[in-house]
Amino acid sequence: MLKEQTFLRIPGPTPIPPSVQQAMNRPMMGHRSSEASDLISSIKPRLRKVFGSTQDVIILTGSGTSALEAAVVNTVMPGDEVLVIVTGSFGDRFAKICEAHNVTAHRLDVEWGKSFQTEEVRSLLQKNPAIQAVFATYCETSTGVMNPIDSLSEAVNGVSEALIIVDGVSCVGAVETKMDDWKIDIMVTGSQKALMLPPGLAFIAASERAWRRIEDNPSRGFYLDLLKYRKDLQQSSTPFTPAISLLLGLDEALKLLETEGYPEVFDRHTLMKEMTRAAFRALEIPLLTSDADAAETVTSVQPDDFDADAFRKLVKSEFGLSMAGGQGHLSGQIFRIGHMGYCSPADMLQTIAMIEIGLLKIGKNIELGKGVSAAQNVYMSKEGAQ
Amino acid sequence: MLKEQTFLRIPGPTPIPPSVQQAMNRPMMGHRSSEASDLISSIKPRLRKVFGSTQDVIILTGSGTSALEAAVVNTVMPGDEVLVIVTGSFGDRFAKICEAHNVTAHRLDVEWGKSFQTEEVRSLLQKNPAIQAVFATYCETSTGVMNPIDSLSEAVNGVSEALIIVDGVSCVGAVETKMDDWKIDIMVTGSQKALMLPPGLAFIAASERAWRRIEDNPSRGFYLDLLKYRKDLQQSSTPFTPAISLLLGLDEALKLLETEGYPEVFDRHTLMKEMTRAAFRALEIPLLTSDADAAETVTSVQPDDFDADAFRKLVKSEFGLSMAGGQGHLSGQIFRIGHMGYCSPADMLQTIAMIEIGLLKIGKNIELGKGVSAAQNVYMSKEGAQ
Repeated sequence: MLKEQTFLRIPGPTPIPPSVQQAMNRPMMGHRSSEASDLISSIKPRLRKVFGSTQDVIILTGSGTSALEAAVVNTVMPGDEVLVIVTGSFGDRFAKICEAHNVTAHRLDVEWGKSFQTEEVRSLLQKNPAIQAVFATYCETSTGVMNPIDSLSEAVNGVSEALIIVDGVSCVGAVETKMDDWKIDIMVTGSQKALMLPPGLAFIAASERAWRRIEDNPSRGFYLDLLKYRKDLQQSSTPFTPAISLLLGLDEALKLLETEGYPEVFDRHTLMKEMTRAAFRALEIPLLTSDADAAETVTSVQPDDFDADAFRKLVKSEFGLSMAGGQGHLSGQIFRIGHMGYCSPADMLQTIAMIEIGLLKIGKNIELGKGVSAAQNVYMSKEGAQ
Repeated sequence: MLKEQTFLRIPGPTPIPPSVQQAMNRPMMGHRSSEASDLISSIKPRLRKVFGSTQDVIILTGSGTSALEAAVVNTVMPGDEVLVIVTGSFGDRFAKICEAHNVTAHRLDVEWGKSFQTEEVRSLLQKNPAIQAVFATYCETSTGVMNPIDSLSEAVNGVSEALIIVDGVSCVGAVETKMDDWKIDIMVTGSQKALMLPPGLAFIAASERAWRRIEDNPSRGFYLDLLKYRKDLQQSSTPFTPAISLLLGLDEALKLLETEGYPEVFDRHTLMKEMTRAAFRALEIPLLTSDADAAETVTSVQPDDFDADAFRKLVKSEFGLSMAGGQGHLSGQIFRIGHMGYCSPADMLQTIAMIEIGLLKIGKNIELGKGVSAAQNVYMSKEGAQ
């Protein structure tokens, strides 16, 4: 077999488009040069569009978690009470970050594989009027659940002045995000998911209301102090040397998204989700999430008659196909297929075809082509509808 | 003119070698894959060598400043007293990070352009027995000064139990660094200087003594909590998605340094420093630093009869040659030439030749070739000595 070939179908990091690679190969430049300033200046308005906000989007050099921590340390103080909605391991991470900063986290623990109910959020806020912020996850990567972020503010409004803080790491750029319309106060994402870049950049935007809270916060740390970044971003600069090669790649990745058109990008992700789900339904292999809760960017499969991890190992070795396993108590129970960023419906046909062979090889009795044809039918029906 | 060509002679970011570019173009991989683990496993012992330590070197995804802040938050607590030796704007940054965390910083302010005196450090420690840590800068990038880090522990030993914490961002990898022998407790560097990579990775190692202090520290934050990184690094992993493309580049950059040989790498940097200084001496243009204090990686020139910033602008426009200006009160007073990382004696000959033309064009009365020949003579004399 062609061992050089790899198929990265984990929910991030995701494959890098060739033109983005080329952009990252441009000669290095000084971070205080006019070229760097022009680059940031070109990126700035386009990131606002990705976030659906009139606010500038701050670029951190760091993992997605650096921006999650920035969201915590800039908005709340030790001793403050917050509500953390935990629908999986990334919700849990928000809670852990709060604890590390002596912020009291009330947890709304939701069964993994399900989305949260806004009524429960409202009820918890009514019971705990001291809550200063609500932390939620847009796409919960660990389960493949898409949470109802668009209606979260309706649950908060009228009962609480809490800021609404959202981890959008594994979906912003792949699904519609209307930060302003949805009254999200802080939105976070990372470079290595829908934005088709290597890991190393994290993004965070804040509402007017959140900025006022940040301005009043006396302990924002240093590297993650958002006021420093906002001030420099106004001059199209950064307070610390940014990951310049990734910024060059971002400029090109945004060009690719803009050329495709954001509505088309969102439709492509919905289509890949529906093709993937149709394939497993046709193969009679259970999905972890309901249609209503399923994420556009990652699908969790929960087999009931074969070992998820052994199956992943087999297709990795056979085809170089990488899928993700389960996290926490779902470890060994599920496998997760990423379909976001530089990934097309054609890629999903190939992925499903490889998966079918892997299933047969692990001893599962399936009819070859049944999943692929189900996915093809979804593709054909959607095409007709457009 | 060939406007596409650029010469990046600032003290970081530095140019990227072609083979490092190629390595960074390898297909993206999962951060929890065996490939990622193999990569980190390969890098681990080689970074220890760069630091001159038996301790593992932790890799952060972030600017150099992220590791400076990690050095602060992991070792000292709010209310602690520390000594910060300030020889330029990066020493000042250490002080600002301490202040942001309510750590009381006693400053030893040294005239910019000079190195610190270990006796002054000793005397300050004797007067302030509560000091928990001494923060120093190895190469002060803003002035081009190399500080006597090798003898800093002699000033501390016997008078204080303070940890010795060193910012080695703009020289580690280009000059000898013997963290263990010199009894440095924390050493920090970044990717975009001597290590020939784009910005986006920061490195930090800690002594046994420092690790004990870190283990006892209850407030280490989250993203910069070094205990998390140490634990995962033992399994050749990272707690958060690292900048994988930069890790691929690091693997190759280390190969280049190892192939050249570290003693040869250090000699090359010393040679580039001496060539540069000889050139400006021959041209009778003052240098900011003495021979004893001069850094191997960056040379600061302090012209007394032409405008440093106008001169930089001219050579940037004429040749695409980028040099750095002064920072703080040296702004407009000096220009700084970086000669580190992917930079050779041949590059310095070219740089000096371009600078000579620039000097003539800005109206300075010089003899063309005088600086170049002085640098050539240094090169020839050193070659004979080897």
